[in-house]
Amino acid sequence: MALVRIIITGSEILSGKVIEKNSYQILKGLTKIGFQIEKISVIHDDSQMLKKELEDALSQVDVIIISGGLGPTKDDITKDTISKYFSLRTYIDETILNKIEEYYKNLKKPVPEFAIKQALLPKKAIILENPIGFAPGLIIKKGRKIIILLPGVFEELKTILENSVIPFLEDNFNLKPKIYKTIRTVGISESEIMAKIEDICRKKFKNIQISYLPSCLGVDIEISSEDKKDVNFCEKEISSRLKEYIYGYENISLEEKVGELLRKKSLTLATAESCTGGLLGNKITNIPGSSDYYLGGVIAYSNEIKKLICKVKEETLKQYGAVSKETAIEMAKGIRNYYQADIGLSTTGVAGPTSSERKPIGLVYIGIASQKKAVVEEYHFLGNREMIKEQAAQMALNLVRKVLEGE
Amino acid sequence: MALVRIIITGSEILSGKVIEKNSYQILKGLTKIGFQIEKISVIHDDSQMLKKELEDALSQVDVIIISGGLGPTKDDITKDTISKYFSLRTYIDETILNKIEEYYKNLKKPVPEFAIKQALLPKKAIILENPIGFAPGLIIKKGRKIIILLPGVFEELKTILENSVIPFLEDNFNLKPKIYKTIRTVGISESEIMAKIEDICRKKFKNIQISYLPSCLGVDIEISSEDKKDVNFCEKEISSRLKEYIYGYENISLEEKVGELLRKKSLTLATAESCTGGLLGNKITNIPGSSDYYLGGVIAYSNEIKKLICKVKEETLKQYGAVSKETAIEMAKGIRNYYQADIGLSTTGVAGPTSSERKPIGLVYIGIASQKKAVVEEYHFLGNREMIKEQAAQMALNLVRKVLEGE
Repeated sequence: MALVRIIITGSEILSGKVIEKNSYQILKGLTKIGFQIEKISVIHDDSQMLKKELEDALSQVDVIIISGGLGPTKDDITKDTISKYFSLRTYIDETILNKIEEYYKNLKKPVPEFAIKQALLPKKAIILENPIGFAPGLIIKKGRKIIILLPGVFEELKTILENSVIPFLEDNFNLKPKIYKTIRTVGISESEIMAKIEDICRKKFKNIQISYLPSCLGVDIEISSEDKKDVNFCEKEISSRLKEYIYGYENISLEEKVGELLRKKSLTLATAESCTGGLLGNKITNIPGSSDYYLGGVIAYSNEIKKLICKVKEETLKQYGAVSKETAIEMAKGIRNYYQADIGLSTTGVAGPTSSERKPIGLVYIGIASQKKAVVEEYHFLGNREMIKEQAAQMALNLVRKVLEGE
Repeated sequence: MALVRIIITGSEILSGKVIEKNSYQILKGLTKIGFQIEKISVIHDDSQMLKKELEDALSQVDVIIISGGLGPTKDDITKDTISKYFSLRTYIDETILNKIEEYYKNLKKPVPEFAIKQALLPKKAIILENPIGFAPGLIIKKGRKIIILLPGVFEELKTILENSVIPFLEDNFNLKPKIYKTIRTVGISESEIMAKIEDICRKKFKNIQISYLPSCLGVDIEISSEDKKDVNFCEKEISSRLKEYIYGYENISLEEKVGELLRKKSLTLATAESCTGGLLGNKITNIPGSSDYYLGGVIAYSNEIKKLICKVKEETLKQYGAVSKETAIEMAKGIRNYYQADIGLSTTGVAGPTSSERKPIGLVYIGIASQKKAVVEEYHFLGNREMIKEQAAQMALNLVRKVLEGE
């Protein structure tokens, strides 16, 4: 196992002026080739802090990656700090200097004195070419530890990382990358999943790591291990226990899965949305090619439209209210008819923050109508207005999945 | 000066499964009220690492904010680690427990054993209500140091931060924060803005900082200084130069602004969406109370529905195609009529990644019809499918704003 510390320097990040994206780029690249990230630190452009961070990292990890502070200005202190820390002499690199001079010659401007700082490099460092900027990346080897310096500009960092850092690390460490597998579930909580599968990790597969990634849309289960067989067995075991809650593996989204099912069965879909207000249609149409199976829908925010297009009966609205099982079913049937679709799908509920009809916030009915049957489900969602809408749209998609997979 | 260390826990972040957004949210909120962020650390769900980090932070800063690890599962170790570190006893909080029991009762499911862990709190901690989840935030005071624990789920963290943490810190620290002002623009690029206002900062207000936060929906301009007068003058100057591109200040969204205008003028709106597929309705209905002015709409993904509900003429579709000025106008007029709304708004375009009708990807027509007039605008958006939908919905909202402000 090889451990990595990522150190991001930049006072502009800590003051909130710039959103930091470099650490994610680095960790994505490195975990893929088998490294494990020990920690990410974001610190100021401050020599003392950098030194302290470096010292701590040297005692903990094999590879240290530092981003930022290689540029021309006064607060670019990384190269200087590192050179002094390891007592490395510096020199002016002719190749970089020429590149800088060439650039300003083209601009017909004199080379600013501070620009030259970018050609000042520590001796013995491996130079990583920067094809889109001046400051090159640098690799410094100290005993068995490797320290890598990269520019803070996102595009430059990304390019040097991909072109030079990843190949270098692959050559220098003979790592066996971990195998990852993601199982995507919907309609079951993290605690319920744990109750169903927790023993797997404890008893059957001790070298396996299971992590849960819950969001208001569902829980992803990530299995990882160095042993591919273990991952596959474990995946099968979990799959058989959680069967009906699993809509897919890896990166597939629920709307993609529903699209696949509709396409495979040559069925069309139409939606009637009250509380989701268009979100359901939006999710469905985020999938390229969705026009093949999605005919469209109606955002029936007012009762008038519920009656006009979905043919919800006046009595139904009066007797049960717009947020009711009865209205949800009539909406699903109505939109199916109106759009001449194979499947009609409806949502009606209270997204909050206030509620009319004396129904509780978070109460949502989801209706589905096909040629064979009509079903309605009742939900009580937690969260703010947008989260309730998100959950309602997700469970509506899930209802389509359940009906299509059950058929 | 008051210093803050932000500690983000979560192995799923360091393994690259989840993009970390909490630290930015925390630092934005805290710098606004005058705190300075000393460092951000992202660490594993590991008791030893958390303890080490905590110890170091206690020697360096006044306030420590820890996100993550308050949930029900085995890797949620924050509460336990902190309680042990400060030798705090724990107890089951009845209010939280009731909330959990109530939730599962509604689901008609037994309470999973793990779930109860979220009600287990350290004694003497101040409890910060979590209105959208189970795990509350916690404040622990140790001498002059303050340790704040927040859930890792972004929406929950954000809510507790705004409702409870910021007010608490404002009360407990008497800081002189910088003055910030955000101007929100749409329909003008960052470079165009810079060309129009760049001299303001250079010449007129030297103690002012202007930063640009561009997204595919528009550019926000942030002005900051310690001098309130300067900020106000600068804001006036920028406002007068960018007038028609500004839809609001601070946190207001374009859909909120459009809602305000409709409400003020007692007008109703209906939408006919082709390429935005429900996104426009979704944005409008994200605003609480939008049912007062938004009647709903139709997702007219198929030509059949364009004809059936929007009364787009067969000849129009044949002669000009579904993605055309003519169709956009007829859709806007048609939906206005059908829903008996004051304003009809339509989108039709090519969101990609493929295009029928030999029209280029990114081409979008937006139509609007009111009693007085009908207008159509043509756009060429860059980006992937979702980005094109986002921009189309945003410019549709902007067209409503322009028409209503012009009237």
